[in-house]
Amino acid sequence: MTILQKYLSARQKVIEQALGRYLPRASEKPVTIHKAMRYSIFVGGKRLRPILCLAAAEACGGKVEQAMAAACAVECIHTYSLIHDDLPCMDDDDFRRGQPTSHKVFGEGVAVLAGDALLTIAFEILAQSKETPLYKMPALVKELAGASGSKWLIGGQVADLEGEGKKINGENLKFIHRAKTAALLTAAIRLGAMSANASRKKLDDLTSFGQSLGLAFQVIDDILDVTQTSEKLGKSAGKDVAAQKATYPAVFGLEKSRREAHVLTHQALAAIKPFGAKGAMLKTLADYLLERDY
Amino acid sequence: MTILQKYLSARQKVIEQALGRYLPRASEKPVTIHKAMRYSIFVGGKRLRPILCLAAAEACGGKVEQAMAAACAVECIHTYSLIHDDLPCMDDDDFRRGQPTSHKVFGEGVAVLAGDALLTIAFEILAQSKETPLYKMPALVKELAGASGSKWLIGGQVADLEGEGKKINGENLKFIHRAKTAALLTAAIRLGAMSANASRKKLDDLTSFGQSLGLAFQVIDDILDVTQTSEKLGKSAGKDVAAQKATYPAVFGLEKSRREAHVLTHQALAAIKPFGAKGAMLKTLADYLLERDY
Repeated sequence: MTILQKYLSARQKVIEQALGRYLPRASEKPVTIHKAMRYSIFVGGKRLRPILCLAAAEACGGKVEQAMAAACAVECIHTYSLIHDDLPCMDDDDFRRGQPTSHKVFGEGVAVLAGDALLTIAFEILAQSKETPLYKMPALVKELAGASGSKWLIGGQVADLEGEGKKINGENLKFIHRAKTAALLTAAIRLGAMSANASRKKLDDLTSFGQSLGLAFQVIDDILDVTQTSEKLGKSAGKDVAAQKATYPAVFGLEKSRREAHVLTHQALAAIKPFGAKGAMLKTLADYLLERDY
Repeated sequence: MTILQKYLSARQKVIEQALGRYLPRASEKPVTIHKAMRYSIFVGGKRLRPILCLAAAEACGGKVEQAMAAACAVECIHTYSLIHDDLPCMDDDDFRRGQPTSHKVFGEGVAVLAGDALLTIAFEILAQSKETPLYKMPALVKELAGASGSKWLIGGQVADLEGEGKKINGENLKFIHRAKTAALLTAAIRLGAMSANASRKKLDDLTSFGQSLGLAFQVIDDILDVTQTSEKLGKSAGKDVAAQKATYPAVFGLEKSRREAHVLTHQALAAIKPFGAKGAMLKTLADYLLERDY
């Protein structure tokens, strides 16, 4: 394993241990809902958002433990959004991370409720964060609820649903990608910084970093959907094309999309220049996300 | 109008005005989700939970404004739970409060997302509450997330789904009613008290009041389902029977259910005796809920 792979694997481990502590045990009643919550949380995933949250906290001089509640809260939000997006009435996906989706395993009713329960517990977990002199609990809750709410994460999914099968222009596409992907990824980074009592200047720089990185991440996801196999992705490749979803390659072509991913990553890196050596891990993560093939 | 009717109508008005301010305007993008959120919030409803929240705050010497954010947050949670419960994959209801349910108007995908958005904004609204010396934001968030989470509100719906068509005993039935109805109603009352900086003793008494009142409320709901017309209820009467849902009349018979509603209301009133005259409005509300016919 490379140093980066070791780092990612170690971080995934501590994050998953923390998630295991925060979530109710599978034996707690009603058993079905707790099994369903744990199934989707532990079925896999790169833990990218919580890893970025912890790395942002460290870049601001904080410790991993300070940001762990926020990191796990963001992962619960991310996971709930996948469960609901995969439902038959939404994107109708049978596989995610190489495994059957929640509604295939537990039925649609329980899948809706498991998503609801992960969304709800995200705020309960977040409320266990320690406040800092600069950032109190209302600011943390507002950050997570805002990024996850009707104007961003949920709004993006609505626009995505409404755009299916229609010709979408570049501007709408960027809105969907910013809303569905970049907003929560940025919130993860901001919550990490806030947990470390970051100065306003650092928070602003990391916000720019997150916005560019989040958009780059989704552009690369779109590219991989058309260039990689389902096996490698752990979800149905070519699905976006089949559903006539608006994607970067569909709107701008593959070459222009690749250039855009590079430009966005470059912008992200420029934003954290002021962090110097303290931003090294964030830089490594941004480079890794650009070069990934799954 | 009686004095009580005037009181309820005035409270409904201020609560609806506050909800109107807290929710994004229907013209905000993406328009569909904000229209759907507002549709379900403003389609009707007795506003029972927020009214109890405000009355509990007043019983503890607080003012309506102190508890308004919590009251509106609880109403958003209640409304989201109705939208999701009505989905085809759950109770499959076409009407609620005499009007078509969210998925009939906006389609299933948007209905799921409108529920998600109301659940999310509940915490954003709650975060606008003022903290009190005794109760800080983490306690408020924990209260709302706990009552709405996998062990109570959502857990009750899971148990309800799993019990359909099966023979259910009285103990399981009580769990479902406590979890699905009494927990959020109790949280509404507790959040009102916490917003008014209530002593631990007052909070405990109001918790007992809420638990008994919440169970009484659901027993009466079950009774009305078999004794009233759909027109009067604004939802499909006899639905519980048709779906072979476990209800009080089905398990205990109609007469025993009526006696149980009286006993529970009596227990609720006994719990707030120490409030004396300050508990008068809570007493009036409990009596009204017992005698209601819709």
